[in-house]
Formats: sequence, C-alpha cells, structure tokens
Amino acid sequence: MTGRPLLPPVEYAAANAEVRAVYDEIMALRGTDWVNDFWKVLAHDPATLRRTWDSVRQVMAPGALDPLTKEMLYIAVSITNGCAYCINSHTAAARAKGLTDAQLGELIAVVGMANETNALATAWQVPVDERFEGGGRE
Amino acid sequence: MTGRPLLPPVEYAAANAEVRAVYDEIMALRGTDWVNDFWKVLAHDPATLRRTWDSVRQVMAPGALDPLTKEMLYIAVSITNGCAYCINSHTAAARAKGLTDAQLGELIAVVGMANETNALATAWQVPVDERFEGGGRE
Amino acid sequence: MTGRPLLPPVEYAAANAEVRAVYDEIMALRGTDWVNDFWKVLAHDPATLRRTWDSVRQVMAPGALDPLTKEMLYIAVSITNGCAYCINSHTAAARAKGLTDAQLGELIAVVGMANETNALATAWQVPVDERFEGGGRE
Amino acid sequence: MTGRPLLPPVEYAAANAEVRAVYDEIMALRGTDWVNDFWKVLAHDPATLRRTWDSVRQVMAPGALDPLTKEMLYIAVSITNGCAYCINSHTAAARAKGLTDAQLGELIAVVGMANETNALATAWQVPVDERFEGGGRE
Amino acid sequence: MTGRPLLPPVEYAAANAEVRAVYDEIMALRGTDWVNDFWKVLAHDPATLRRTWDSVRQVMAPGALDPLTKEMLYIAVSITNGCAYCINSHTAAARAKGLTDAQLGELIAVVGMANETNALATAWQVPVDERFEGGGRE
Amino acid sequence: MTGRPLLPPVEYAAANAEVRAVYDEIMALRGTDWVNDFWKVLAHDPATLRRTWDSVRQVMAPGALDPLTKEMLYIAVSITNGCAYCINSHTAAARAKGLTDAQLGELIAVVGMANETNALATAWQVPVDERFEGGGRE
Repeated sequence: MTGRPLLPPVEYAAANAEVRAVYDEIMALRGTDWVNDFWKVLAHDPATLRRTWDSVRQVMAPGALDPLTKEMLYIAVSITNGCAYCINSHTAAARAKGLTDAQLGELIAVVGMANETNALATAWQVPVDERFEGGGRE
Repeated sequence: MTGRPLLPPVEYAAANAEVRAVYDEIMALRGTDWVNDFWKVLAHDPATLRRTWDSVRQVMAPGALDPLTKEMLYIAVSITNGCAYCINSHTAAARAKGLTDAQLGELIAVVGMANETNALATAWQVPVDERFEGGGRE
Repeated sequence: MTGRPLLPPVEYAAANAEVRAVYDEIMALRGTDWVNDFWKVLAHDPATLRRTWDSVRQVMAPGALDPLTKEMLYIAVSITNGCAYCINSHTAAARAKGLTDAQLGELIAVVGMANETNALATAWQVPVDERFEGGGRE
Repeated sequence: MTGRPLLPPVEYAAANAEVRAVYDEIMALRGTDWVNDFWKVLAHDPATLRRTWDSVRQVMAPGALDPLTKEMLYIAVSITNGCAYCINSHTAAARAKGLTDAQLGELIAVVGMANETNALATAWQVPVDERFEGGGRE
Repeated sequence: MTGRPLLPPVEYAAANAEVRAVYDEIMALRGTDWVNDFWKVLAHDPATLRRTWDSVRQVMAPGALDPLTKEMLYIAVSITNGCAYCINSHTAAARAKGLTDAQLGELIAVVGMANETNALATAWQVPVDERFEGGGRE
Repeated sequence: MTGRPLLPPVEYAAANAEVRAVYDEIMALRGTDWVNDFWKVLAHDPATLRRTWDSVRQVMAPGALDPLTKEMLYIAVSITNGCAYCINSHTAAARAKGLTDAQLGELIAVVGMANETNALATAWQVPVDERFEGGGRE
C-alpha cells in the first residue's frame, strides 16, 4: 500500500452537514475528539459513510456476544483477508476493550491453525460427514 | 466439491498402530466412538496426522481464551476462506460447547461486516493512522 | 457445500411481521411472488435481514453506475471469492437485466486475466509507480 | 510490500529486442513515452512478458463490453484480492478513460457489499436455489 | 457448486472450426480422444479458449522447471484458492505424470503449513527483514 | 503494512530459556548467527513459537519431495495469499538452496496462470468431470 489513498481524507472543517453528523456520532460514541482516516476517506461517498457507520454500530453492539468477542472475530477475518488497516485498527479497538497480549497471542494461534486445517480439508477434498451437515443441527 | 476425496478414508481396522493411537486420543478426548473423515483421510500421511492433531489440541485447549471463543474464531476464519467442511464441522463443535442460534447469527453478522469493511479499506487504500500502528500499542 | 444450510429457510407462513415485511418488499421490487433462500435463511437474524436488504437495495440502485454494471461488478467479486451461491444468483439477476452470453464471456475473461496479473504483480513484489500513487490522482 | 521487487526493472536501454518490441507496443497503444514497472520487472521472463501483454491487450479491447466497464471489473477483482499495485494502476487507467469520483465511490460500495453478502451466503451454507442453477439459464 | 455450469459444454459435433482446432490439439498433446468440460464450457468464448489453451501449453511446457513440478505448483495454488475443479483435474494430471501418494501427502502438508505461517506473519504484521528485501537478492 | 508489528521482536538477550532454545536451533540448522523477525515476534507466545518451529522443520525436511521443491510450493502459496513477508523470506530461502532466476520466472508464470484458470473454472461453475473425481484415482 502506498502512502496515498485514492482520494484524500475529508477533514471536519471541509465536510458537509451529513458527513459532520457521522463524525460527531463517531466521536461521541468513542469519547474522543478524533476520527480515523477510514471514515474520512469514505466521506467522499456520504451515503456509504452513513450506511456503513450505522451498520458497524449495529453489528458491534453488545448482544448475544460481548463487544470484545466481536472485536476478536473482526481481527480474525481481517488477518485472513490480509487487511493491514483493519488488523491494526481493530487490534487497537480490542486493546481499548481489554484484550491482553496473552489473549492476542492465542487468538492469532487459532487463526493460524484454522488457516492450516482449512487448507488441508480443501486439499484432500474431504466431503462433509453426514453428522456435520447443517453444522450438526438436528 | 465432489463426493470423493483424493484418497479414501482409512478405517480403524485398516489403520496401523501410529494412526490408531491418534484415533484413540480423538475419541477419548471427545467421549465418542467415532472419528470424522478429516482425520481418516489425513491418516494417509501419519506424520501430518500426528502433528496436526497435537497442534489442534494444543491451540484449542482452554487458556487466556475459552474453548467456545476459540471455536467461534475458527468458524470466522473458515467462512472467510470458504471452507465448507470446516464451517460445518466447527459449527457442530461450537454447538456441542453451547453456541446458541442467536450467538451464531451475531457471529455471522460480524464476519459479514468485517469482510465488507476490509474491502472498503483496501479499495480506498487508506494508510494506517499513526495512532493505530502496531495495533495501537504504546 | 452440503445440501443443508446451518439453519433451515424461514417460510413466509412461519415468519414474524418484521421478516414478512422484508419478504414483501423483495417480492414487490422484483415483481415476483418468490423469495430466494439467501433471505429465508438470513431471516433467523431479523436485524441482519433488514439491514442487509436495505443496504443491497441502496447500493444496487441506479446512480452514477447503471444496475447492469453493478451486477457485473457483483459477479466479478463473487467469482474471485469463489461463492457459488452468489455467482449463480447474480448471474441470474444480470441476465434478467439484459446480460448477454457474449457480455458474460468477456466479463469472465477480464476476471480471469485480472486474477492472473494480480498474482504476477504480487509475486514480483512490484512497488506502485509514483505516477500511479493515489490511483493516479493529481 | 517492501520497496524492492524480486528482480530490478529492466530499463529500455538494457532490454533486448524482444523486450523492446513489447515496450514499444505499450507506449504506442497508450500514446506515452513511459512504461510502468509491472512490465519492466516481468521483462526478466520475456516469454511471459510477451504472452501477458498480448493477453491483456486482447481481453481489454472493446467488444461486447466497453473498455471503462472492463477497467471497473479489473478494479473490483484487484480490491478483492488485495493487490495494491493493481488497484492503483487500474484506477489510474480507469480515470484516464473517464471514471469519475462518483462512479469510483459506487464501484467500491458494490464491491464492499458483495464481499459482505458473499460471506453471509457462505457462512449460512445456503444451497443454490433451483431457479438459480446455471445462473438462471433455461 | 451446482451440477450445472453457466452455459452447457460445447460438444465436438456442435463446435465450429476454431473450437474444433483447439479440441484436436488438446487430444493430440494428451494422446486421448477425450476433452474435459473446462475447455468445452470455455468454448462459448472461442477467443478465450484459444488464448487460454496456448497460454497453458506454453507455461506448462518443460523449461527450467520440469512438468511434474509445475503441476504441483498448480495444485498448491488451486488448494489455496479453494478451486475444487482445479484440485481434482491437476491432481489427475500430476498422477499421470508420476506423482506418488507420498509426494501428494508432502505437497499438501507444505501447503497447509504455508497457509498457517502466512496467517501468522500477516497477523503479527511483521515487517520484511532488511536481509530478505527483494527476496534476498544482492 | 506499517513499520511496526503488533508486539516488538524479542531479542536474544531478553528472551527466556524456552525461547532461546528455539533461536539456538534455528541458528544451528541454518548455520548463521541471525534469527529473522518472524520468530522474534512469535516469541511473545512461546508455545506457538516452539510448535511452529517444530512443525516447519518437520514439513520442510527432505522426504518424498526435495527441499527446493518445498520452498517453491511455499512461495506459490504465499503469492496466492498475498503475504509479502513470506514471499520475500521464502524466495531468499529458495535462492539459498539454488533457485535460479529462470526457475523463479517459470514458478511465477505457473502461479499466475493457475490463478487465472482457477477463476475461469469457478466463474463458469464447471462441475468436476467424472474421470477427475478423487483427483483421477482408481
């Protein structure tokens, strides 16, 4: 990745009301006065900015799973896709929610192992065992 | 995937002592009398069977993360890699450890969202914010 | 992929009001009396069903790009991710919007070539030319 | 990606006749006096340079799809594969063919959404609806 | 994958002269009277059929690497991409060129391990050591 | 990728006995007095460091396949996954084992082609020919 995104970040001072509203919500939810560049670049497409922010907020809210578990799942996907931005930003978010170095190490060990056995199962072309169809549901 | 793996499963009766030892450990740890086909196909390469089983057992053991969280991370990776065998087998394992349908739904929603924002960050080529470098470590 | 999803499709008769509302919108927009299984399985997680449907509808609406171009982009991504469900369903959608076999053939040829040169650029570890940084923006 | 490719670019002055012929064709087709590093590194393998250039030229020529649509498909694949070189170079090429920022924004939104629903369909292991088999062909 | 491709295979009797010429070359090179469905489906786009066949033949010919090594590399890529068609067809090709079950087992073990350590290096975001830049070239 | 890993490399002087033992084995096997950063970062999780080193050493040892072939397979996977660290480090390892530039060029050409035909087979959704099922085994 080069040092320049496809379009430059839209700073608050230059943003329109629609974009500023999202920035305000991001800062309020996080209790900071700072917005990261992912959102500032996405701001060139205000409809996508709004929709993505609303979606992330909904998906990452506490529910049947707690927010730290959700951040860990996010990191696992980001590693597997090789998204450096997402690995760094979500590790930072997870640490802010209490992720320890020991937990991070185990998370990465699981992700590594899963990538290996995914490859092994695919390589050997193992059909799904009858008992596992539907993820083992009855 | 076709219905036939690259080599047929090695059944217990046909397995050598090295392979049987692994099968015995799998059944003992799980408290069942059944071994799934992933291991039975891997048995054509006994060294890989032994090493993979030992590695999975080590990685998935309780530690800084609990076993159910680890299964969820495994599922997240398997979805992102598109490994049907692994999605089904690890969902079955997670359900056996207590995963509810509501948790499964939220897990999948996070994985879906992560795949979307991974693509957005990559697409716009957003450089990592200075504050997020090293995953936000000091 | 096996013949069974992780949870069974939720049929209209068994769906709650929130889910039925989405099904109704899908059928109305498409002018059919039929809803495909993607949505019926997603219905186990009604919040994700609603959010995903709203998002897809927004993203795929005519704008700076026409709907057929958008379907073609969807197919290109689905091929690269190896999602059989998505390749088949979006090819069907694209054909319904006028995609010809000749266009499909060229689309696939471009996707194939892009996958090859992506691999070549990555393999040789070619740094981005200065003129191309920021996608060539000034 | 580091700043150094696996082998250094082959400059025109140092290139043999076979390689120079490809460089000449690239510059003539593009109406420039400049060749980007992708081709200059590939020049270490002249047969692959010639074949790849001929293939790209054939695939990207106007046909049932116009050249800008083809560039957009190229970008969609490059994003999904996470190839920074290709995202930047093909965005530059698309802009030279008239891609607007609004079109770029919608392209990326579609690619993001497709990556999300690809993951959702895979996660839930939804079998292809009978009506969609063969991409809906009769 | 469903049982139906996006367009049906073009049988020899129904093929035009351009397509038949490729089929004839495939059968002659392989010493068989049979053409596999990959080529028969690709035949709907004769220019891509001709170009792809010529390219594969060039790339897979003996050179600095022998044909069996090339088939093994093909299988390694196909596993990593999760392409069932390609895993099965290139394993069949490799076996016809002498691949033993022991070699297949080791190939798969390497591919599995590489997928694991790829994930670990990406997860930890390890920068390339100075000595390894340019793949260790001087 | 940024210049900072998620945790800093653990230098020999700061390492505990368990980690030093692995470093010693790495240096002894390679006949150098230097350990690359992959292992030094992994050292934050000593159990994973030990297990991964033992696994890599086992998998890459000479067997039915020679070590250079195994390195080439590793590179092929690393390219397909887009892991810059792994491409550079394993190309360096392969060169140390005798890989020539001509072999590297052909390796990359095969990997490029495989990525293209993987995409074509997936795009057209070609079912596996009956003769290729099980990778052509009898």
